[in-house]
Amino acid sequence: MLGRTYEGQNCSVACALELVGERWSLLIIRDALFAGSTRFRDFQRSLGLATNTLSARLDRFVDSGLMERRRNSEQSEHYEYVLTDKGRDLQPVVAALSAWGDQWVTPPGPPIVFEHSSCGGTVHQQICCTSCGEDLKTTDVVARPRVET
Amino acid sequence: MLGRTYEGQNCSVACALELVGERWSLLIIRDALFAGSTRFRDFQRSLGLATNTLSARLDRFVDSGLMERRRNSEQSEHYEYVLTDKGRDLQPVVAALSAWGDQWVTPPGPPIVFEHSSCGGTVHQQICCTSCGEDLKTTDVVARPRVET
Repeated sequence: MLGRTYEGQNCSVACALELVGERWSLLIIRDALFAGSTRFRDFQRSLGLATNTLSARLDRFVDSGLMERRRNSEQSEHYEYVLTDKGRDLQPVVAALSAWGDQWVTPPGPPIVFEHSSCGGTVHQQICCTSCGEDLKTTDVVARPRVET
Repeated sequence: MLGRTYEGQNCSVACALELVGERWSLLIIRDALFAGSTRFRDFQRSLGLATNTLSARLDRFVDSGLMERRRNSEQSEHYEYVLTDKGRDLQPVVAALSAWGDQWVTPPGPPIVFEHSSCGGTVHQQICCTSCGEDLKTTDVVARPRVET
């Protein structure tokens, strides 16, 4: 049996995937982050997914604090779904997936590029050490259980 | 109907999620990256998921070039599943999910910490601009369709 949750996985990755690991979730977040989508029909048109699925995902995002549901002032029967800080902070996750897809999956080049809004430069994601300041490769990183203090 | 693929999504994020978006996929990659898991039973014990699901995920990873299946020399009826460069390059994705989980989901502190292997310093993921060199916040980044040249 495949459980509905990653129960027993004492790990921030598993906790994160509980909230954004369901199918379509990160593409909805991508549209909110980078296409400025806020309305149900914007997401629906972009993704072409079933309305009940989209509705379930957006409701879950609101319940878990990734988005706020706001009444659209111009058309008061409609709502907007706006990323909170918690939702907006998924940008590095989406950017890392995008960079990996550019490198390894998407031929023949990235369909979407990430740019620095003020100078138009290409955005690069990197990992560095906060102690010695060195820029790191993935092979320089080890994961350890945190020691309770 | 929810399709099996993200067909029509001309995006590296969607392409990446085609390969690693299925349930448990990124936790298997996490174990391979950070727990050094290579054997079927290592993954199975760590994740506690059904053997047919694990088997399907590992087969898919081999087929898509994320892992290599190697015969274990000591016990020749057993195989090891070893990350390729393509698989290892998912480290920033897993690290970004972990950082987000640490920040927003996991109480009361990160169960796993990422360290620089040579100095033990804390690893930080950041985005920067390759043109002006500035360290960026997520709100400094815009996504644009790539212009064909």
